[in-house]
Amino acid sequence: MDSDYGVPRELSDLQKLRSKYQPELPPCLQGTTVGVEFAGAIAVIDHSDDQAINQSFPKTYGQRLAKFVGDTTKVSDGQVITEHPAIRVGVVFCGRQSPGGHNVIWGLHDALKVHNANNTLLGFLGGSEGLFAQKTLEITNDVLATYKNQGGFDLLGRTKDQIRTPEQVKGAMAACMALKLDGLVIIGGVTSNTDAARLAETFAVEKCPTKVVGVPVTLNGDLKNAFVETTVGFDTICKVNSQLISNVCTDALSAEKYYYFIRLMGRKHSHVSLECTLQSHPNMVILGEEVAASKQTLSDLTKKICDAVQARAEKDKYHGVILLPEGLIESIPEAYALLQEIHGLLKQGVSVDNISAQLSPAASALFDVLPQFIRKQLLLHPESDDSAHLSQIEMEKLLADLVEAEMNKRLKEGTYKGKKFNAICHFFGYQARGSLPSKFDCDYAYVLGHVCYHVLAAGLNGYMATVENLKNPVSEWRCGAAPIPAMMSVNRFCHGAGDVSVGKLAVHPATVDLKSKAYKLLCENAKKFLMDDVYRNPGPLQFDGAGADSKAITLCVEEQY
Amino acid sequence: MDSDYGVPRELSDLQKLRSKYQPELPPCLQGTTVGVEFAGAIAVIDHSDDQAINQSFPKTYGQRLAKFVGDTTKVSDGQVITEHPAIRVGVVFCGRQSPGGHNVIWGLHDALKVHNANNTLLGFLGGSEGLFAQKTLEITNDVLATYKNQGGFDLLGRTKDQIRTPEQVKGAMAACMALKLDGLVIIGGVTSNTDAARLAETFAVEKCPTKVVGVPVTLNGDLKNAFVETTVGFDTICKVNSQLISNVCTDALSAEKYYYFIRLMGRKHSHVSLECTLQSHPNMVILGEEVAASKQTLSDLTKKICDAVQARAEKDKYHGVILLPEGLIESIPEAYALLQEIHGLLKQGVSVDNISAQLSPAASALFDVLPQFIRKQLLLHPESDDSAHLSQIEMEKLLADLVEAEMNKRLKEGTYKGKKFNAICHFFGYQARGSLPSKFDCDYAYVLGHVCYHVLAAGLNGYMATVENLKNPVSEWRCGAAPIPAMMSVNRFCHGAGDVSVGKLAVHPATVDLKSKAYKLLCENAKKFLMDDVYRNPGPLQFDGAGADSKAITLCVEEQY
Repeated sequence: MDSDYGVPRELSDLQKLRSKYQPELPPCLQGTTVGVEFAGAIAVIDHSDDQAINQSFPKTYGQRLAKFVGDTTKVSDGQVITEHPAIRVGVVFCGRQSPGGHNVIWGLHDALKVHNANNTLLGFLGGSEGLFAQKTLEITNDVLATYKNQGGFDLLGRTKDQIRTPEQVKGAMAACMALKLDGLVIIGGVTSNTDAARLAETFAVEKCPTKVVGVPVTLNGDLKNAFVETTVGFDTICKVNSQLISNVCTDALSAEKYYYFIRLMGRKHSHVSLECTLQSHPNMVILGEEVAASKQTLSDLTKKICDAVQARAEKDKYHGVILLPEGLIESIPEAYALLQEIHGLLKQGVSVDNISAQLSPAASALFDVLPQFIRKQLLLHPESDDSAHLSQIEMEKLLADLVEAEMNKRLKEGTYKGKKFNAICHFFGYQARGSLPSKFDCDYAYVLGHVCYHVLAAGLNGYMATVENLKNPVSEWRCGAAPIPAMMSVNRFCHGAGDVSVGKLAVHPATVDLKSKAYKLLCENAKKFLMDDVYRNPGPLQFDGAGADSKAITLCVEEQY
Repeated sequence: MDSDYGVPRELSDLQKLRSKYQPELPPCLQGTTVGVEFAGAIAVIDHSDDQAINQSFPKTYGQRLAKFVGDTTKVSDGQVITEHPAIRVGVVFCGRQSPGGHNVIWGLHDALKVHNANNTLLGFLGGSEGLFAQKTLEITNDVLATYKNQGGFDLLGRTKDQIRTPEQVKGAMAACMALKLDGLVIIGGVTSNTDAARLAETFAVEKCPTKVVGVPVTLNGDLKNAFVETTVGFDTICKVNSQLISNVCTDALSAEKYYYFIRLMGRKHSHVSLECTLQSHPNMVILGEEVAASKQTLSDLTKKICDAVQARAEKDKYHGVILLPEGLIESIPEAYALLQEIHGLLKQGVSVDNISAQLSPAASALFDVLPQFIRKQLLLHPESDDSAHLSQIEMEKLLADLVEAEMNKRLKEGTYKGKKFNAICHFFGYQARGSLPSKFDCDYAYVLGHVCYHVLAAGLNGYMATVENLKNPVSEWRCGAAPIPAMMSVNRFCHGAGDVSVGKLAVHPATVDLKSKAYKLLCENAKKFLMDDVYRNPGPLQFDGAGADSKAITLCVEEQY
């Protein structure tokens, strides 16, 4: 199964050129002597869950933020690392492939070799399963040659994407011990970084000497908090998607006969959808966070879209482009409740055929009116992080169907007098996430790889590598590390009437902040986007010349710390 | 409806930069004096339909190939055009939007203005419907400003894409007379160029002074013959699709759990699929021409794919990427026969609900075993060129379903012992055809626009503008024009037992030549592509640096004349 991983790849001319691109390092990492400085106070984002975190992470919670500095004369509270004994480090991909992932490994490799030629980097073949099975590939410059600045995770592959059950944790620890690893670097999103933190805690408790470091790599862009500005892959995914969305907008404008419903990969939250909207100016975007905040139903959403279609028809416009996030269904309260019931029944072992009969009256009422295709998709078993199989639930089709039915009804009733409504549906994700990474993602990932080395050299455990000030040039980037438990919180669910249930302690995905400047920017333009077709095409990802150095709008528009 | 057309667009930075790009002209068009030289013999590709063509095109068949030359001292059989009285020209988009279409208009505009500042160019707003309604926009440099080198057809729009019925032809003639047009330029593919030729003939017969010129613009790449090397838009479409296919290949290789079935827009024939395969090296491509030549059934195709899946599983590979052309269904004899019956019944006014009961036993047998979704799609009314509504018939899903069923059967029977087969389906088209055009398409379209002017200046009617030697630099391109009727033929259908029925006289779409070098190249590599995952990513369309000047492999690999 892993025979495909890590073999030299045939590269196109452009890929060859990209493989020669050397990302620069920020000044703080350029020397061979790097200092680590600690913040005065314990790292924490929000104190409300202190107790719960403390209980779960007695060894690794309560650590301080680390900052890496090149000018070591100024290190006051910290250490200057001058000795670099040979170490052995393992690295594993754990999560959806995101453009730039390979550069984390390349950066880590370079940092290891610069500081001690005897350092060893082992990549686990086949993701978490390769970790448990102790299948490794020694990462060398030769191995890296055709993977530098390239997309995908095919240097090492990924599989199950979880290191969570007692057996899995035991398997990971056995691998680290057997391979005598000083460090284990886990590349992934919120779920994998939560796993990384738990693993670090277990290792500390069990006195396993391997230090665990997490790296924020996910196309979703939902690993974002006071310590983490953005994730590797998000920039590329948004650029590739925006190109395609813009092409569709141009298409819509040329033939003026279709509404395009485009669902964008990125799980439940709407970071990708928001960024792509600001890049491409489609007519409408449905943000899960807005839907959840105003508790909209499927019927509310349908009405909202139909009203927009009707308003445009009155201006003689019969085309449009509407974006929605991959996991919109989880943001619609009634649909989410239905999903939760289905998953509960699946967990109890109820067979798919019998589920509909065992639903509550409310859930059953919704389920029964849904078209056959979506019912089948809702009944799919949940994914490794317990969320629904979101990529497979075609909300874009459901909405298009509902809108079509409602527009036909209005036409019949005479309340709508325009042309017949026609929709075309798309799901953009697989065709973007294998893309060549943007220059930004190449740089960010490569620097994060270097930071991982310094986290390990400083002996830190349960930290995530971080880079700040990303909207400015690399020469102004600040590198550090933040303890992962400090990013955690306990989920709370309000069920109305003050009834609150308490969920998991984890690094939870960030929602799109409805008070952010990026969201405000959207609100200010929403009317114009809807009615005026001010479509904008950022164009295909460029590596040279205009546009090559552009960065995500949602990253640049916010004030950083 | 046309309020969106021709308005200034908001451009992104990259779009702005592209709008400043000035394509060069080949030497033969650089001076203000251009000579037109005629070939010795009458232009003809194949004499077998001479009589039929002669009958339908008494005025415009039997003309000679024209060649434009800059060095007018050498013009022997032809004329040197030095006088350029002011003329009025109309231009209309007629067919699927294809990247580069705007540059034909820009090139035509520039050529008109260079030769006489009093020349007028009128664009018809809203395609053929705008032509009949005489809705025009005068094309000026200001109007063109935000459309130069940009994708889509939204400068003028497109609608019904046909000028064929007696009423339509009458409408077109009325418009040309009313607007006092010296020339009408029709931008489109095989169907629109056939319409252009018939219009030219009618104008000649009716003594309407407007000369009609066709321009080969279609993403399908199927307007290709001894006079036409390739069409505007094909290069871009293949590059954008190849980028996406390659991203999917990288994705497949990273997670190793899905087979991706990707259907590519491009109508019945497989030019886009072949080019994209040579660019990206997916595991398999199903060419309609191969299927038709060996009369494969749906069940043959399913078996072929299943055997490939099984062979890969034996090498522990559970992922793959399979391409198919948009209109594959029309190449499968049994499916095409079914479609023809359905269309026949629809034409007779049989309602969709009653069609299944009126099918012949053979057609009915096939129809009844097809899944519900595809039955619904087969019952859609045909398009304006009488072909099925190919974009809407999801053959990729049908094949994936059939393969899944067969793999499950093999698993049950024990003849297949691998993991469960999982498929993800895509249709790539709408997200590509609005793309910014590649440099090649920008150049080719702009030059064709100039050629249109010279065709009109030479007083030619019923010709298509042509450029030869395209695989070489612009400085070596040769410009000319070919009479459209010379590209026509009569379709013949063999029904077995020597029974032949005769179809339409038209410019028929070219099939992929199974004796061509491009096809040979595919055959030589098919085994390696299938088993060895030698995926190759040409990367996103570049406008600067490496890859910016690359051209289609199927164009470059063939010997030109």
